Amino acid sequence: MNKELSTGFSQLKNNFLMKDGWIIAEQVFDKEQIVTTGSNFMFGNGYLGYRGTFEEWGKDEYVACIVTDTYDTADGKWNELCNVPNGLFVKLQFNGEQVDIGSGDISDYQRSIDLRHGLLNRSFSWQHSAGQVEVSTEKFASMTSLNTLALHYRITAKNSGEVTLLSGIDGDVWSLNGDHFQTMHPSQEGELLAITSTTKELATDIAVVEGVNIQGGSLKNEEVVKQDKQIFRKFVLEVRAGETISLMKFVEIRHSNECDAPKAEAIVALQQDLENGYQKIKSAHQQAWEDIWGSTDIQIEGDEAAQTLTRFNLFQNIIATPSHASLPIGARGLSCQAYQGAAFWDQEIFNMPMFLYTAPAAARNILKYRYDTLGGARRKAKELGYEGAYYAWISGKTGDELCPSFFFKDVLTGRPIRNHFNCWQMHISPDIAYAIWHYYEATDDWQFIVEYGAEMFFEIARFLFAFGFYKSFRDRYELIRLLGPDEYHENVDNNAFSNYQTKYALEKACYVFDHLKASNSIALGKLMEKLSLSEQEVANWHDMAAKIYLPQPDPETKLIEQFDGYFALEDTTPAVIKTRLQDPGEYHGWPNGIAVHTQVLKQADVIQLFCLHDDFDKEILQANYDYYEPRTEHGSSLSPSAYAIVASKIGYVDEAYRNFMKSCFVDIANTGKAVSGGTFIGGIHTAACGSVWNMTTVGFAGFAIHDNALRFDPHIPDHWSRLAFHMKYKGQGFNVEITGKKLELTADSDNSAAIPYFSNSGEIANLAPGERATIGA
Amino acid sequence: MNKELSTGFSQLKNNFLMKDGWIIAEQVFDKEQIVTTGSNFMFGNGYLGYRGTFEEWGKDEYVACIVTDTYDTADGKWNELCNVPNGLFVKLQFNGEQVDIGSGDISDYQRSIDLRHGLLNRSFSWQHSAGQVEVSTEKFASMTSLNTLALHYRITAKNSGEVTLLSGIDGDVWSLNGDHFQTMHPSQEGELLAITSTTKELATDIAVVEGVNIQGGSLKNEEVVKQDKQIFRKFVLEVRAGETISLMKFVEIRHSNECDAPKAEAIVALQQDLENGYQKIKSAHQQAWEDIWGSTDIQIEGDEAAQTLTRFNLFQNIIATPSHASLPIGARGLSCQAYQGAAFWDQEIFNMPMFLYTAPAAARNILKYRYDTLGGARRKAKELGYEGAYYAWISGKTGDELCPSFFFKDVLTGRPIRNHFNCWQMHISPDIAYAIWHYYEATDDWQFIVEYGAEMFFEIARFLFAFGFYKSFRDRYELIRLLGPDEYHENVDNNAFSNYQTKYALEKACYVFDHLKASNSIALGKLMEKLSLSEQEVANWHDMAAKIYLPQPDPETKLIEQFDGYFALEDTTPAVIKTRLQDPGEYHGWPNGIAVHTQVLKQADVIQLFCLHDDFDKEILQANYDYYEPRTEHGSSLSPSAYAIVASKIGYVDEAYRNFMKSCFVDIANTGKAVSGGTFIGGIHTAACGSVWNMTTVGFAGFAIHDNALRFDPHIPDHWSRLAFHMKYKGQGFNVEITGKKLELTADSDNSAAIPYFSNSGEIANLAPGERATIGA
Repeated sequence: MNKELSTGFSQLKNNFLMKDGWIIAEQVFDKEQIVTTGSNFMFGNGYLGYRGTFEEWGKDEYVACIVTDTYDTADGKWNELCNVPNGLFVKLQFNGEQVDIGSGDISDYQRSIDLRHGLLNRSFSWQHSAGQVEVSTEKFASMTSLNTLALHYRITAKNSGEVTLLSGIDGDVWSLNGDHFQTMHPSQEGELLAITSTTKELATDIAVVEGVNIQGGSLKNEEVVKQDKQIFRKFVLEVRAGETISLMKFVEIRHSNECDAPKAEAIVALQQDLENGYQKIKSAHQQAWEDIWGSTDIQIEGDEAAQTLTRFNLFQNIIATPSHASLPIGARGLSCQAYQGAAFWDQEIFNMPMFLYTAPAAARNILKYRYDTLGGARRKAKELGYEGAYYAWISGKTGDELCPSFFFKDVLTGRPIRNHFNCWQMHISPDIAYAIWHYYEATDDWQFIVEYGAEMFFEIARFLFAFGFYKSFRDRYELIRLLGPDEYHENVDNNAFSNYQTKYALEKACYVFDHLKASNSIALGKLMEKLSLSEQEVANWHDMAAKIYLPQPDPETKLIEQFDGYFALEDTTPAVIKTRLQDPGEYHGWPNGIAVHTQVLKQADVIQLFCLHDDFDKEILQANYDYYEPRTEHGSSLSPSAYAIVASKIGYVDEAYRNFMKSCFVDIANTGKAVSGGTFIGGIHTAACGSVWNMTTVGFAGFAIHDNALRFDPHIPDHWSRLAFHMKYKGQGFNVEITGKKLELTADSDNSAAIPYFSNSGEIANLAPGERATIGA
Repeated sequence: MNKELSTGFSQLKNNFLMKDGWIIAEQVFDKEQIVTTGSNFMFGNGYLGYRGTFEEWGKDEYVACIVTDTYDTADGKWNELCNVPNGLFVKLQFNGEQVDIGSGDISDYQRSIDLRHGLLNRSFSWQHSAGQVEVSTEKFASMTSLNTLALHYRITAKNSGEVTLLSGIDGDVWSLNGDHFQTMHPSQEGELLAITSTTKELATDIAVVEGVNIQGGSLKNEEVVKQDKQIFRKFVLEVRAGETISLMKFVEIRHSNECDAPKAEAIVALQQDLENGYQKIKSAHQQAWEDIWGSTDIQIEGDEAAQTLTRFNLFQNIIATPSHASLPIGARGLSCQAYQGAAFWDQEIFNMPMFLYTAPAAARNILKYRYDTLGGARRKAKELGYEGAYYAWISGKTGDELCPSFFFKDVLTGRPIRNHFNCWQMHISPDIAYAIWHYYEATDDWQFIVEYGAEMFFEIARFLFAFGFYKSFRDRYELIRLLGPDEYHENVDNNAFSNYQTKYALEKACYVFDHLKASNSIALGKLMEKLSLSEQEVANWHDMAAKIYLPQPDPETKLIEQFDGYFALEDTTPAVIKTRLQDPGEYHGWPNGIAVHTQVLKQADVIQLFCLHDDFDKEILQANYDYYEPRTEHGSSLSPSAYAIVASKIGYVDEAYRNFMKSCFVDIANTGKAVSGGTFIGGIHTAACGSVWNMTTVGFAGFAIHDNALRFDPHIPDHWSRLAFHMKYKGQGFNVEITGKKLELTADSDNSAAIPYFSNSGEIANLAPGERATIGA
């Protein structure tokens, strides 16, 4: 592990290096990994994601700039976000020779992402019979002006000669499911270049405008070239030995779903960018990131890898999330088009908690998106014979179900498989209710409940009542034919996770109704009229909440059965069933995959329940952890984090750390395939990224809210000398600092109120502004 | 069709000939068809079934004598009836040469079954350098003494010479699923031979005793030979040219599930047989058959094939049915061990109606069997989390579920398929309730209801209430996750057939409860105590009966949807989906067979509903017939009869006749495979046989009971000059005779009461003993 690296760098994993707890880099270029490294080094700002690729690359190297709210369906295929024309396109020649990673002798190669400031850097030295140049580039997606990309491309010539720079826009983009552009018009706009394109299905106009500023060298010639879907400016410059040429390049992106005149507005913005200059834009961008980290950073001392990976994952959660708008967080964020740029339950359960306690306005936005897509959820419910809001399993702009009925292929027969994520995986609706309640609990934002939350609660409760069945002879409600989080087992009854979530959602809906009735009967009256909601319906929810069947821990074994009949399935392990594969590409689940008739789980399910509900004692947690962990394949990137959190709660610190690192590494040194059967399934696993916050705070720090007070129960790994982070609860900020078994809670001095917390005595105490309290040893 | 045949014979199909409307014969021996012809020519008496094989054959030629109530499981395989040692075993040599169908020149070969008298005959002339003999044999299973088999084996020598006869018992029997005999003891018992054997699982003792009487020839030598599992007597006789030797052979079978000392009792019986002699035993047997046909025969004039096939199917239904005991009717009767010798819904819905209106005591026996197996049905219900009686899909001696969870194999992957006949095909229980009610309706046997029926009704209702779900938001009960008759579609909701049957069963259970309460509160009280049954439960049944969802005919199309979502499946045909097969042996159904995601049905489902419930007008019948028929694969032998019956009701006489003949031919000139993938699946399709009665009476004659009165609505094929049969209704016999559009109803002169019937005026009239009425033109 201790081979010689550049100053300050140490090894993270495989080719990945780290530095200062903030920088991830590679100093070896592996052509075979470009599909993965493009994700590893990506940057973005929640409005767009830009893959960590090289300026001279194109579609074959998976260059992508994925822009929010550009959903489109091409040629009857899947709905997905557009990969817009690449405005950061630059090619370099020196003395007539192409300068890139595949030509000449390359030395001092480095690509690095600076997580602290969202900067992607690349540098290398190129030696050839034609001469020698050093190239270094830096680019970013502005955190202050979200439509803006900026690039600083520097060439230092070791010999005098001729530098040719092609800088422009490449509209020949990589796209997973069909070409989304019915038209693509490159144009010269004064000193600027532009490509305007119109999407196929929804005729969204997208404009990408580019402008440059060159310093150094001596310009001999300049021309504009349009070819196919590219437009670029060709600069020929003479350069002296030792001279540096700086190309400062700006890109503005606009589309007609966000403004009226995309191209015109982009041109105006770009002229402003040129006026402001690279340094000013970069400074504002860096300051914005400093501010974000001020509220979001998690500091780990004594474990540089854990520190760096934690920030990598926090960074990914931040840049994946369209905090600026009411739009979904994609399951692969903005790292590529995979998974349709659409939200799953991941959004509320894995991505949202970090925002909830660090940037509540962003959490509010996430939930506002669910409010705005109630129409789609209502349409789904109706289509499937229910009432209320059955949220889409795969939710894009409108909230209509995007998940197709036939998702996978049976590789053994070539026949499509009818999966039922779109009609049976009903926990999505109570999961959203759960998140709304937690938003309210963490922010006291009752106004949000009045304006949006109540309607969602009521429509979700309505759906749950319609979905559930009253089993008369047992005098209880049951949930029949569903999928829990463990997707290998479809068509099950009374999935523990789903049943507990359903009860919770119904109870909160009833509470909101009762509370509104007492506090704001006019608002309630209007809402009841809007929804044609009767008191009888609410009585029904009360009844269902009281009588819904909750699988209980067995008195002897303490085990909670994942679903009815689970324990009667073949008791075996992931390793054993893998030997039964006839083809490595086989889907393990429904209808007849290798896991279906066994107890092998794709991912945490009962264990996931424990992450969300703190009602089970340690003995139960431990028994279930011990039982379910060896039976879990972790076939989902959501899985290790749940095990990490519950291991922490049990006090299984080593297990917690092992799962924590497994989760943190999901997107670094990815060992999974990014392309399978010709389909790109790579990109950033945004939910796993979001879960880093949960694993450190809820897991290692043992954070929970009980009785409107903070509770901590820290169990950090022995080799961590310090774990620290900042949170907000009901508008009051505080720092948490854990050293050994001791936790120090420090209220921000500018707080307006005391913060209730559980002190060592087990009583609720109040932490005044600026005050510090110690919990634990 | 008019090639030259022996006198009186005409062609039926392929090699099959017919004569006198009673005899089916073949005059060409096809070695390839022995597995099928063994079933075609079988005989039996409801206690045992004996395949229509040759005396000299053994296990390789599928010789079998299947005996009721000998259930056994060998080597952990399937539970099935035993094929007992073959007591009718005879081998013949002439002048040292084996005489059989494979040696010498064979002429004048004929094998025939005389349906009228249950006699299997075989004859042939054998010519060889060693000489010439004529052989003719006749055998039967006595209809008066059910444990008795008899054989008359005649040899006429054309030359003088030496006849060697081996006659004895062959214990080396064919068995589908393992060897059922842990011991097998051949013994000589004075003049008799015996084999006693003990079954593997349940240690049932089975005795087969054989004795012979030889006439003609001159006995030169006689010895007893035991070898392996055979014991036989070797007779060497001298014979003159033209002389006939008659071997008259009797076999007695007894087992320890029916008597205490099987061998001793069989010996006594056999000695009596020898005393009585062949002719006396045969005469009694023939008379018994005459009596059966007196009440059961259906006469068709103008269509010899239809007449012969009708009798063939009635015959099979009679000999498959253990009218002597409370035992199931096997799905393959007693023709072989296939389908575990166990009852399905076939028994009540397809086999029972004929008995109900011709031999009500046998119908009572069928239902008594269901009473006796309530324990198994209760165990099944409990195991699956219900209450009451969930009858087994495959029901043997105890009524415990015999249907395995993994039934078929996926031939494309070799993986077992989890089918759910054993847990989701719930219509079996209401089907039995339906049959009990019809038994009561046809017989007025309230005493049966008091003693047995009420308990079954209540336990079935209990199960149905436990199985059903109350869908609160629709204020209705639903049946979720089941299979209807169409087994290609598992995991469906609200299957029309099952829902209507369930409502019917609940209504009748409530009626029985109310009626018992009013008429026999003591008996009811005892039963309620026995079952711990409360009035609240009965109120629940009332509620469920009133509120169960019944899929209604669409107001416009008149179509009833087979189950929720059926019409949304791919609309295609059996022929189209067959082109998608990757292997001809693929199972078409669950979980991913070619029919699953399409509207293609295995068998009549909504159409079957119309067979049982007369509440739908012709317009509805016709619309559904027209829709479902082209989508039906008739992959079950139960299917054509339902289409025949409903076609008759609509007045689609040609369609009715086509389906009638298709059903009648299921077991004659069988084009299906009898052995598939090494597993024997052949044998007699007993339900299709039973349905011949339903097709002629309910179908062509339009028979139904309404308001406790007979109703007829005849639609017979144009080329039938006459259709006539005898029935009993509430103890009163009557003849039905249809000629053209006219139906004559003639009450038996010895009736004790008038028979109510719907006259031409649409009013109920009464038919006095001996009186005749005309219905129709």
